[in-house]
Amino acid sequence: MSENVLGTNVVCQVAVVVRDVERAAKAWAAILGVEPPAWRLTDPAEKSHIRYRGQATEGRAKLAFFSLGPQVRLELIEPVGGPSTWREFLDRYGQGIHHMAFQIKGMDEVLARLDAQQITLVQRGDYTGGRYAYVDGLANLGAILELLENLDH
Amino acid sequence: MSENVLGTNVVCQVAVVVRDVERAAKAWAAILGVEPPAWRLTDPAEKSHIRYRGQATEGRAKLAFFSLGPQVRLELIEPVGGPSTWREFLDRYGQGIHHMAFQIKGMDEVLARLDAQQITLVQRGDYTGGRYAYVDGLANLGAILELLENLDH
Repeated sequence: MSENVLGTNVVCQVAVVVRDVERAAKAWAAILGVEPPAWRLTDPAEKSHIRYRGQATEGRAKLAFFSLGPQVRLELIEPVGGPSTWREFLDRYGQGIHHMAFQIKGMDEVLARLDAQQITLVQRGDYTGGRYAYVDGLANLGAILELLENLDH
Repeated sequence: MSENVLGTNVVCQVAVVVRDVERAAKAWAAILGVEPPAWRLTDPAEKSHIRYRGQATEGRAKLAFFSLGPQVRLELIEPVGGPSTWREFLDRYGQGIHHMAFQIKGMDEVLARLDAQQITLVQRGDYTGGRYAYVDGLANLGAILELLENLDH
């Protein structure tokens, strides 16, 4: 039996790429019986240091969140601006479930261990308080995964 | 604010459609650091009473499960046999995240409330101890949902 490459098995987020985050947030709010949450825009490239397929990009997203129980948040993602994994997914598949996310420790080590299993980096960047990376496991896991690493200050 | 149509907001399952459940289970087992689980075949139509887009079908699936924390199970689904939502998804998109599932009570009432919001039934059937239904929320929610209802005896 191998070691746990992620250092966790706890999925903390399921994310859906949508064309219009306000419209999708209203639809989810209606079935979950809650008020539609406000959306927020991801940071600009100079702050997020976003890199998509090894290149700098102006890709951003409008995000809205719902609770799906104590363990999981639903993230709605509307791609805006330049190229990104979110835009690529929407163009290729239309609206759909884009990824599952896990809280990890030691981003570069986890990415190296995943890469050794042909689960390769697609996009990475920073957010206030942490950093993220998407890895493409579609061919072997059947899914894109997001790694989230909150950084203590 | 509307009522919660599902009667819950707790996602209990995230499911991935794959071409080869044994291969995908090995890949997930390797990154989660667990033994690959055995897969099992869904019941034949005469037992599952499966109906896909309003028609009887011989569609079945090989299933394998992993724990993704206390709240969520990962379900790997390899479509076999006749038409199904699983087969349709694989043919259309390739491998990917097919649905999120919720435990509900009162299947027909929940389906009627979802239908009133243009989230329509795609497939339903029985399993030992309960019944399930898939609803197509791709246009408004951005996702297919599964409703699971365990029946007490």
